[in-house]
Amino acid sequence: MNGKFITLEGGDGTGKTTQAELLVSYLNDIGIKAIAVREPGGTELGEKIRQLLRSMTLSISDPLVEVMLFFAARRQLLKHTIWPALEDGAWVVCDRFYDSSLVYQGVMKGCSIEHIMGIKHIVMESFEPDLTMILDLPLKDVLYRIGQRQGDKDPWDNMPPEYHEKVRNSFRKLAGTFSFRCVAVKASGSAEAVQKRLQEVLHKHLIK
Amino acid sequence: MNGKFITLEGGDGTGKTTQAELLVSYLNDIGIKAIAVREPGGTELGEKIRQLLRSMTLSISDPLVEVMLFFAARRQLLKHTIWPALEDGAWVVCDRFYDSSLVYQGVMKGCSIEHIMGIKHIVMESFEPDLTMILDLPLKDVLYRIGQRQGDKDPWDNMPPEYHEKVRNSFRKLAGTFSFRCVAVKASGSAEAVQKRLQEVLHKHLIK
Repeated sequence: MNGKFITLEGGDGTGKTTQAELLVSYLNDIGIKAIAVREPGGTELGEKIRQLLRSMTLSISDPLVEVMLFFAARRQLLKHTIWPALEDGAWVVCDRFYDSSLVYQGVMKGCSIEHIMGIKHIVMESFEPDLTMILDLPLKDVLYRIGQRQGDKDPWDNMPPEYHEKVRNSFRKLAGTFSFRCVAVKASGSAEAVQKRLQEVLHKHLIK
Repeated sequence: MNGKFITLEGGDGTGKTTQAELLVSYLNDIGIKAIAVREPGGTELGEKIRQLLRSMTLSISDPLVEVMLFFAARRQLLKHTIWPALEDGAWVVCDRFYDSSLVYQGVMKGCSIEHIMGIKHIVMESFEPDLTMILDLPLKDVLYRIGQRQGDKDPWDNMPPEYHEKVRNSFRKLAGTFSFRCVAVKASGSAEAVQKRLQEVLHKHLIK
Protein backbone atom coordinates (compact mmCIF):
# COMPACT_ATOMS: atom_id res chain seq x y z
CA MET A 1 0.00 0.00 0.00
CA ASN A 2 1.29 3.46 -0.83
CA GLY A 3 -0.76 5.57 1.62
CA LYS A 4 -1.00 5.29 5.40
CA PHE A 5 -4.00 4.02 7.33
CA ILE A 6 -4.79 5.84 10.58
CA THR A 7 -7.63 4.86 12.90
CA LEU A 8 -9.16 6.96 15.68
CA GLU A 9 -10.66 5.02 18.56
CA GLY A 10 -12.20 5.75 21.95
CA GLY A 11 -15.57 5.90 23.68
CA ASP A 12 -18.52 8.04 22.68
CA GLY A 13 -18.08 11.75 23.27
CA THR A 14 -14.29 11.67 22.95
CA GLY A 15 -14.39 13.76 19.77
CA LYS A 16 -13.28 11.23 17.17
CA THR A 17 -15.45 12.54 14.32
CA THR A 18 -14.34 16.15 14.74
CA GLN A 19 -10.70 15.13 15.10
CA ALA A 20 -10.82 12.90 12.01
CA GLU A 21 -12.00 15.84 9.92
CA LEU A 22 -9.43 18.23 11.39
CA LEU A 23 -6.69 15.68 10.78
CA VAL A 24 -7.61 15.28 7.13
CA SER A 25 -7.56 19.09 6.69
CA TYR A 26 -4.15 19.21 8.32
CA LEU A 27 -2.77 16.45 6.12
CA ASN A 28 -4.09 18.21 3.03
CA ASP A 29 -2.50 21.46 4.25
CA ILE A 30 0.93 19.84 4.47
CA GLY A 31 0.53 18.37 0.99
CA ILE A 32 -0.66 14.83 1.79
CA LYS A 33 -3.76 13.62 -0.04
CA ALA A 34 -6.14 12.26 2.64
CA ILE A 35 -9.75 11.22 3.20
CA ALA A 36 -11.89 10.59 6.30
CA VAL A 37 -14.18 7.55 6.55
CA ARG A 38 -16.38 6.31 9.35
CA GLU A 39 -17.50 2.93 10.59
CA PRO A 40 -19.88 1.17 10.29
CA GLY A 41 -21.10 3.58 7.61
CA GLY A 42 -19.02 5.06 4.81
CA THR A 43 -20.63 3.02 2.02
CA GLU A 44 -24.26 2.63 1.00
CA LEU A 45 -24.31 -0.87 2.47
CA GLY A 46 -22.49 0.30 5.60
CA GLU A 47 -25.01 3.07 6.22
CA LYS A 48 -27.84 0.53 5.93
CA ILE A 49 -26.08 -1.78 8.38
CA ARG A 50 -25.57 1.19 10.70
CA GLN A 51 -29.31 1.90 10.62
CA LEU A 52 -30.03 -1.79 11.19
CA LEU A 53 -27.75 -1.94 14.23
CA ARG A 54 -29.31 1.17 15.72
CA SER A 55 -32.91 0.14 15.15
CA MET A 56 -32.42 -3.48 16.16
CA THR A 57 -30.29 -3.01 19.27
CA LEU A 58 -32.93 -4.52 21.50
CA SER A 59 -33.63 -7.61 19.44
CA ILE A 60 -30.03 -8.62 18.66
CA SER A 61 -29.27 -10.36 21.91
CA ASP A 62 -26.20 -12.14 20.63
CA PRO A 63 -23.00 -10.06 20.30
CA LEU A 64 -21.58 -12.39 17.63
CA VAL A 65 -24.39 -11.32 15.28
CA GLU A 66 -23.32 -7.71 15.82
CA VAL A 67 -19.70 -8.64 15.16
CA MET A 68 -20.69 -10.28 11.87
CA LEU A 69 -22.64 -7.19 10.80
CA PHE A 70 -19.82 -4.80 11.73
CA PHE A 71 -17.27 -6.90 9.85
CA ALA A 72 -19.56 -7.10 6.80
CA ALA A 73 -19.67 -3.29 6.74
CA ARG A 74 -15.90 -3.17 7.43
CA ARG A 75 -15.08 -5.51 4.54
CA GLN A 76 -17.26 -3.43 2.19
CA LEU A 77 -15.53 -0.21 3.32
CA LEU A 78 -12.08 -1.79 2.92
CA LYS A 79 -12.75 -3.12 -0.57
CA HIS A 80 -14.63 -0.13 -1.94
CA THR A 81 -12.91 2.81 -0.30
CA ILE A 82 -9.96 2.22 2.00
CA TRP A 83 -7.79 -0.18 -0.02
CA PRO A 84 -8.28 1.65 -3.36
CA ALA A 85 -7.44 5.00 -1.68
CA LEU A 86 -4.31 3.61 -0.02
CA GLU A 87 -3.26 1.97 -3.26
CA ASP A 88 -3.67 5.34 -4.92
CA GLY A 89 -1.27 6.89 -2.39
CA ALA A 90 -3.88 8.70 -0.27
CA TRP A 91 -3.89 8.54 3.52
CA VAL A 92 -7.10 7.36 5.16
CA VAL A 93 -8.32 8.50 8.58
CA CYS A 94 -10.95 6.08 9.89
CA ASP A 95 -13.40 7.01 12.66
CA ARG A 96 -13.53 3.65 14.56
CA PHE A 97 -12.20 0.32 13.29
CA TYR A 98 -11.88 -3.21 14.62
CA ASP A 99 -10.64 -2.13 18.06
CA SER A 100 -14.21 -0.94 18.63
CA SER A 101 -15.46 -4.50 18.01
CA LEU A 102 -12.97 -5.79 20.59
CA VAL A 103 -14.17 -3.27 23.17
CA TYR A 104 -17.92 -3.06 22.54
CA GLN A 105 -18.81 -6.61 21.46
CA GLY A 106 -15.86 -8.31 23.16
CA VAL A 107 -15.25 -6.73 26.55
CA MET A 108 -18.62 -5.01 27.05
CA LYS A 109 -20.93 -7.72 25.69
CA GLY A 110 -18.86 -10.83 26.28
CA CYS A 111 -18.27 -12.02 22.73
CA SER A 112 -15.22 -14.29 22.59
CA ILE A 113 -12.10 -12.26 21.66
CA GLU A 114 -10.80 -15.34 19.87
CA HIS A 115 -13.92 -15.39 17.67
CA ILE A 116 -13.60 -11.68 16.88
CA MET A 117 -9.93 -12.10 15.96
CA GLY A 118 -10.79 -15.17 13.88
CA ILE A 119 -13.31 -13.21 11.85
CA LYS A 120 -10.90 -10.27 11.59
CA HIS A 121 -8.27 -12.56 10.15
CA ILE A 122 -10.67 -13.87 7.50
CA VAL A 123 -11.99 -10.41 6.59
CA MET A 124 -8.74 -8.41 6.65
CA GLU A 125 -5.98 -11.04 6.44
CA SER A 126 -2.82 -9.39 7.77
CA PHE A 127 -3.93 -5.81 7.10
CA GLU A 128 -3.55 -3.53 10.15
CA PRO A 129 -3.70 0.23 10.78
CA ASP A 130 -0.32 1.93 10.48
CA LEU A 131 -1.27 3.99 13.53
CA THR A 132 -4.20 3.92 15.95
CA MET A 133 -4.78 6.96 18.15
CA ILE A 134 -7.02 6.28 21.12
CA LEU A 135 -8.76 9.39 22.38
CA ASP A 136 -8.72 9.17 26.13
CA LEU A 137 -11.10 11.39 28.10
CA PRO A 138 -11.85 11.48 31.85
CA LEU A 139 -15.32 10.21 32.75
CA LYS A 140 -16.66 13.62 33.85
CA ASP A 141 -15.84 15.11 30.43
CA VAL A 142 -17.40 12.12 28.62
CA LEU A 143 -20.66 12.52 30.57
CA TYR A 144 -20.70 16.30 30.01
CA ARG A 145 -20.15 15.97 26.25
CA ILE A 146 -22.80 13.25 25.85
CA GLY A 147 -25.25 15.38 27.86
CA GLN A 148 -24.63 18.31 25.50
CA ARG A 149 -25.55 16.31 22.38
CA GLN A 150 -28.61 17.42 20.45
CA GLY A 151 -30.70 15.32 18.08
CA ASP A 152 -28.51 12.51 16.83
CA LYS A 153 -28.48 10.52 20.10
CA ASP A 154 -27.26 6.94 20.16
CA PRO A 155 -29.13 4.27 22.15
CA TRP A 156 -26.05 3.82 24.35
CA ASP A 157 -25.83 7.50 25.28
CA ASN A 158 -28.17 6.71 28.17
CA MET A 159 -25.94 4.05 29.70
CA PRO A 160 -24.80 4.62 33.33
CA PRO A 161 -21.41 6.19 34.15
CA GLU A 162 -19.89 2.78 35.00
CA TYR A 163 -20.48 1.72 31.40
CA HIS A 164 -18.54 4.66 29.99
CA GLU A 165 -15.79 4.14 32.57
CA LYS A 166 -15.41 0.51 31.56
CA VAL A 167 -15.28 1.46 27.87
CA ARG A 168 -12.55 3.99 28.66
CA ASN A 169 -10.50 1.48 30.64
CA SER A 170 -10.89 -1.15 27.92
CA PHE A 171 -9.52 1.19 25.28
CA ARG A 172 -6.59 2.12 27.55
CA LYS A 173 -5.80 -1.54 28.11
CA LEU A 174 -6.01 -2.16 24.37
CA ALA A 175 -3.48 0.63 23.76
CA GLY A 176 -1.11 -1.36 25.97
CA THR A 177 -1.78 -4.70 24.29
CA PHE A 178 -1.30 -3.35 20.77
CA SER A 179 1.43 -0.86 21.67
CA PHE A 180 3.22 -1.48 18.36
CA ARG A 181 0.47 0.50 16.59
CA CYS A 182 -1.64 2.18 19.33
CA VAL A 183 -1.04 5.46 21.15
CA ALA A 184 -3.42 6.86 23.79
CA VAL A 185 -3.88 10.62 23.41
CA LYS A 186 -5.39 12.96 26.03
CA ALA A 187 -8.68 14.17 24.59
CA SER A 188 -9.61 16.89 27.10
CA GLY A 189 -9.41 20.59 26.30
CA SER A 190 -10.40 22.41 23.11
CA ALA A 191 -10.68 20.63 19.76
CA GLU A 192 -7.63 22.63 18.61
CA ALA A 193 -5.56 21.52 21.61
CA VAL A 194 -6.46 17.84 21.00
CA GLN A 195 -5.72 18.17 17.31
CA LYS A 196 -2.31 19.61 18.12
CA ARG A 197 -1.55 16.51 20.22
CA LEU A 198 -2.69 14.17 17.43
CA GLN A 199 -0.48 15.97 14.94
CA GLU A 200 2.50 15.55 17.26
CA VAL A 201 1.86 11.81 17.55
CA LEU A 202 1.46 11.61 13.79
CA HIS A 203 4.78 13.33 13.15
CA LYS A 204 6.56 11.18 15.69
CA HIS A 205 5.26 7.89 14.22
CA LEU A 206 4.51 8.36 10.54
CA ILE A 207 6.00 11.60 9.22
CA LYS A 208 9.67 11.66 10.00
CA MET B 1 -30.27 -31.40 21.23
CA ASN B 2 -33.51 -33.34 21.53
CA GLY B 3 -35.09 -32.58 18.13
CA LYS B 4 -33.67 -33.22 14.68
CA PHE B 5 -32.43 -30.57 12.26
CA ILE B 6 -33.24 -31.13 8.60
CA THR B 7 -32.11 -28.80 5.81
CA LEU B 8 -33.46 -28.63 2.27
CA GLU B 9 -31.02 -27.41 -0.35
CA GLY B 10 -30.92 -27.01 -4.12
CA GLY B 11 -31.12 -24.33 -6.80
CA ASP B 12 -33.98 -21.91 -7.34
CA GLY B 13 -37.14 -23.46 -8.68
CA THR B 14 -36.48 -26.90 -7.20
CA GLY B 15 -39.46 -26.58 -4.83
CA LYS B 16 -37.72 -26.30 -1.44
CA THR B 17 -40.25 -23.93 0.14
CA THR B 18 -43.27 -26.05 -0.81
CA GLN B 19 -41.53 -29.25 0.26
CA ALA B 20 -40.47 -27.77 3.63
CA GLU B 21 -44.10 -26.95 4.41
CA LEU B 22 -45.35 -30.35 3.29
CA LEU B 23 -42.66 -32.07 5.33
CA VAL B 24 -43.64 -30.20 8.50
CA SER B 25 -47.29 -31.17 7.96
CA TYR B 26 -46.25 -34.77 7.50
CA LEU B 27 -44.12 -34.78 10.66
CA ASN B 28 -46.99 -33.26 12.63
CA ASP B 29 -49.33 -35.91 11.20
CA ILE B 30 -47.12 -38.72 12.46
CA GLY B 31 -46.94 -37.10 15.90
CA ILE B 32 -43.61 -35.24 15.69
CA LYS B 33 -43.65 -31.57 16.68
CA ALA B 34 -41.98 -29.65 13.84
CA ILE B 35 -41.51 -26.14 12.44
CA ALA B 36 -40.32 -24.75 9.09
CA VAL B 37 -37.87 -21.85 8.91
CA ARG B 38 -36.23 -20.16 5.97
CA GLU B 39 -32.90 -18.52 5.31
CA PRO B 40 -31.80 -15.76 5.29
CA GLY B 41 -35.12 -14.60 6.74
CA GLY B 42 -36.98 -16.23 9.59
CA THR B 43 -36.28 -13.50 12.16
CA GLU B 44 -36.92 -9.75 12.04
CA LEU B 45 -33.21 -9.14 11.55
CA GLY B 46 -32.97 -11.92 8.97
CA GLU B 47 -35.80 -10.48 6.92
CA LYS B 48 -34.07 -7.09 6.92
CA ILE B 49 -30.82 -8.69 5.82
CA ARG B 50 -32.75 -10.56 3.11
CA GLN B 51 -34.13 -7.23 1.83
CA LEU B 52 -30.65 -5.72 2.00
CA LEU B 53 -29.12 -8.56 -0.02
CA ARG B 54 -31.82 -8.31 -2.65
CA SER B 55 -31.72 -4.53 -3.01
CA MET B 56 -27.94 -4.25 -2.89
CA THR B 57 -27.00 -7.12 -5.19
CA LEU B 58 -25.38 -4.83 -7.70
CA SER B 59 -23.31 -2.81 -5.23
CA ILE B 60 -21.95 -5.70 -3.15
CA SER B 61 -19.17 -6.78 -5.46
CA ASP B 62 -17.34 -8.83 -2.86
CA PRO B 63 -18.78 -12.28 -2.07
CA LEU B 64 -17.18 -12.31 1.40
CA VAL B 65 -19.45 -9.40 2.39
CA GLU B 66 -22.44 -11.52 1.36
CA VAL B 67 -21.10 -14.47 3.33
CA MET B 68 -20.82 -12.28 6.44
CA LEU B 69 -24.39 -11.06 6.03
CA PHE B 70 -25.78 -14.55 5.47
CA PHE B 71 -23.95 -15.89 8.51
CA ALA B 72 -25.16 -12.95 10.64
CA ALA B 73 -28.75 -13.87 9.71
CA ARG B 74 -27.92 -17.57 10.24
CA ARG B 75 -26.53 -17.00 13.72
CA GLN B 76 -29.61 -14.94 14.66
CA LEU B 77 -31.91 -17.70 13.37
CA LEU B 78 -29.94 -20.38 15.23
CA LYS B 79 -29.93 -18.54 18.53
CA HIS B 80 -33.50 -17.25 18.44
CA THR B 81 -35.39 -20.05 16.76
CA ILE B 82 -33.55 -23.22 15.73
CA TRP B 83 -31.57 -24.08 18.86
CA PRO B 84 -34.42 -23.32 21.30
CA ALA B 85 -36.85 -25.40 19.21
CA LEU B 86 -34.44 -28.37 19.01
CA GLU B 87 -33.75 -28.09 22.73
CA ASP B 88 -37.49 -28.22 23.25
CA GLY B 89 -37.68 -31.49 21.31
CA ALA B 90 -39.16 -30.08 18.10
CA TRP B 91 -37.83 -30.96 14.66
CA VAL B 92 -36.80 -28.05 12.45
CA VAL B 93 -36.99 -28.07 8.65
CA CYS B 94 -34.83 -25.30 7.22
CA ASP B 95 -35.25 -23.96 3.69
CA ARG B 96 -31.55 -23.39 2.75
CA PHE B 97 -28.62 -23.41 5.16
CA TYR B 98 -24.85 -23.09 4.92
CA ASP B 99 -24.52 -25.39 1.90
CA SER B 100 -26.13 -22.52 -0.05
CA SER B 101 -23.24 -20.25 1.02
CA LEU B 102 -20.76 -22.86 -0.22
CA VAL B 103 -22.50 -23.06 -3.60
CA TYR B 104 -23.58 -19.46 -4.26
CA GLN B 105 -20.81 -17.41 -2.66
CA GLY B 106 -18.13 -20.11 -2.86
CA VAL B 107 -18.41 -21.95 -6.17
CA MET B 108 -20.48 -19.40 -8.11
CA LYS B 109 -18.83 -16.18 -6.93
CA GLY B 110 -15.36 -17.40 -6.05
CA CYS B 111 -15.28 -16.76 -2.31
CA SER B 112 -12.65 -18.95 -0.65
CA ILE B 113 -14.25 -22.16 0.68
CA GLU B 114 -11.71 -22.09 3.49
CA HIS B 115 -12.96 -18.64 4.53
CA ILE B 116 -16.59 -19.75 4.44
CA MET B 117 -15.81 -22.83 6.54
CA GLY B 118 -13.77 -20.67 8.96
CA ILE B 119 -16.73 -18.36 9.51
CA LYS B 120 -19.08 -21.34 9.78
CA HIS B 121 -16.92 -22.82 12.52
CA ILE B 122 -17.00 -19.57 14.50
CA VAL B 123 -20.75 -19.04 14.05
CA MET B 124 -21.98 -22.62 14.53
CA GLU B 125 -19.10 -24.43 16.24
CA SER B 126 -19.61 -28.15 15.60
CA PHE B 127 -23.36 -27.92 14.96
CA GLU B 128 -24.45 -29.64 11.73
CA PRO B 129 -27.76 -30.67 10.15
CA ASP B 130 -28.80 -34.22 11.07
CA LEU B 131 -29.93 -34.63 7.47
CA THR B 132 -29.64 -32.49 4.33
CA MET B 133 -31.87 -33.30 1.39
CA ILE B 134 -30.70 -31.78 -1.87
CA LEU B 135 -33.52 -31.30 -4.35
CA ASP B 136 -32.11 -32.21 -7.72
CA LEU B 137 -33.99 -31.08 -10.82
CA PRO B 138 -33.00 -31.32 -14.52
CA LEU B 139 -32.19 -27.96 -16.12
CA LYS B 140 -35.25 -27.89 -18.39
CA ASP B 141 -37.56 -28.23 -15.38
CA VAL B 142 -35.67 -25.52 -13.46
CA LEU B 143 -36.02 -23.09 -16.37
CA TYR B 144 -39.69 -23.91 -16.80
CA ARG B 145 -40.51 -23.41 -13.12
CA ILE B 146 -38.59 -20.11 -12.90
CA GLY B 147 -40.39 -18.92 -16.04
CA GLN B 148 -43.75 -19.69 -14.41
CA ARG B 149 -43.05 -17.50 -11.36
CA GLN B 150 -45.25 -14.49 -10.84
CA GLY B 151 -44.45 -11.36 -8.84
CA ASP B 152 -41.83 -12.34 -6.28
CA LYS B 153 -38.94 -12.65 -8.76
CA ASP B 154 -35.36 -12.85 -7.53
CA PRO B 155 -32.60 -10.89 -9.27
CA TRP B 156 -30.91 -14.19 -10.19
CA ASP B 157 -34.00 -15.60 -11.92
CA ASN B 158 -32.75 -13.93 -15.10
CA MET B 159 -29.39 -15.68 -15.13
CA PRO B 160 -28.55 -17.77 -18.22
CA PRO B 161 -29.12 -21.56 -18.30
CA GLU B 162 -25.39 -22.25 -17.75
CA TYR B 163 -25.68 -20.54 -14.36
CA HIS B 164 -28.51 -22.81 -13.21
CA GLU B 165 -26.70 -25.86 -14.58
CA LYS B 166 -23.56 -24.98 -12.62
CA VAL B 167 -25.62 -24.45 -9.44
CA ARG B 168 -27.20 -27.86 -9.93
CA ASN B 169 -23.86 -29.59 -10.49
CA SER B 170 -22.34 -27.85 -7.45
CA PHE B 171 -25.12 -29.09 -5.20
CA ARG B 172 -24.71 -32.63 -6.59
CA LYS B 173 -20.98 -32.52 -5.93
CA LEU B 174 -21.63 -31.24 -2.42
CA ALA B 175 -23.94 -34.19 -1.77
CA GLY B 176 -20.96 -36.40 -2.53
CA THR B 177 -18.51 -34.46 -0.37
CA PHE B 178 -20.80 -34.41 2.66
CA SER B 179 -22.32 -37.84 2.06
CA PHE B 180 -22.48 -38.52 5.83
CA ARG B 181 -25.40 -36.07 6.08
CA CYS B 182 -26.46 -35.24 2.49
CA VAL B 183 -28.82 -37.12 0.19
CA ALA B 184 -29.73 -35.93 -3.31
CA VAL B 185 -33.43 -36.43 -4.07
CA LYS B 186 -35.04 -36.30 -7.51
CA ALA B 187 -37.25 -33.19 -7.54
CA SER B 188 -39.14 -33.70 -10.81
CA GLY B 189 -42.79 -34.67 -10.95
CA SER B 190 -45.67 -33.46 -8.78
CA ALA B 191 -45.16 -31.90 -5.36
CA GLU B 192 -46.81 -34.97 -3.87
CA ALA B 193 -44.44 -37.35 -5.65
CA VAL B 194 -41.39 -35.39 -4.48
CA GLN B 195 -42.73 -35.24 -0.95
CA LYS B 196 -43.16 -39.01 -0.97
CA ARG B 197 -39.48 -39.39 -1.87
CA LEU B 198 -38.41 -37.01 0.89
CA GLN B 199 -40.46 -38.95 3.42
CA GLU B 200 -38.78 -42.18 2.34
CA VAL B 201 -35.32 -40.65 2.81
CA LEU B 202 -36.42 -39.29 6.18
CA HIS B 203 -37.59 -42.70 7.38
CA LYS B 204 -34.45 -44.38 6.14
CA HIS B 205 -32.10 -41.94 7.91
CA LEU B 206 -33.86 -40.46 10.92
CA ILE B 207 -37.01 -42.40 11.79
CA LYS B 208 -36.12 -46.03 12.25
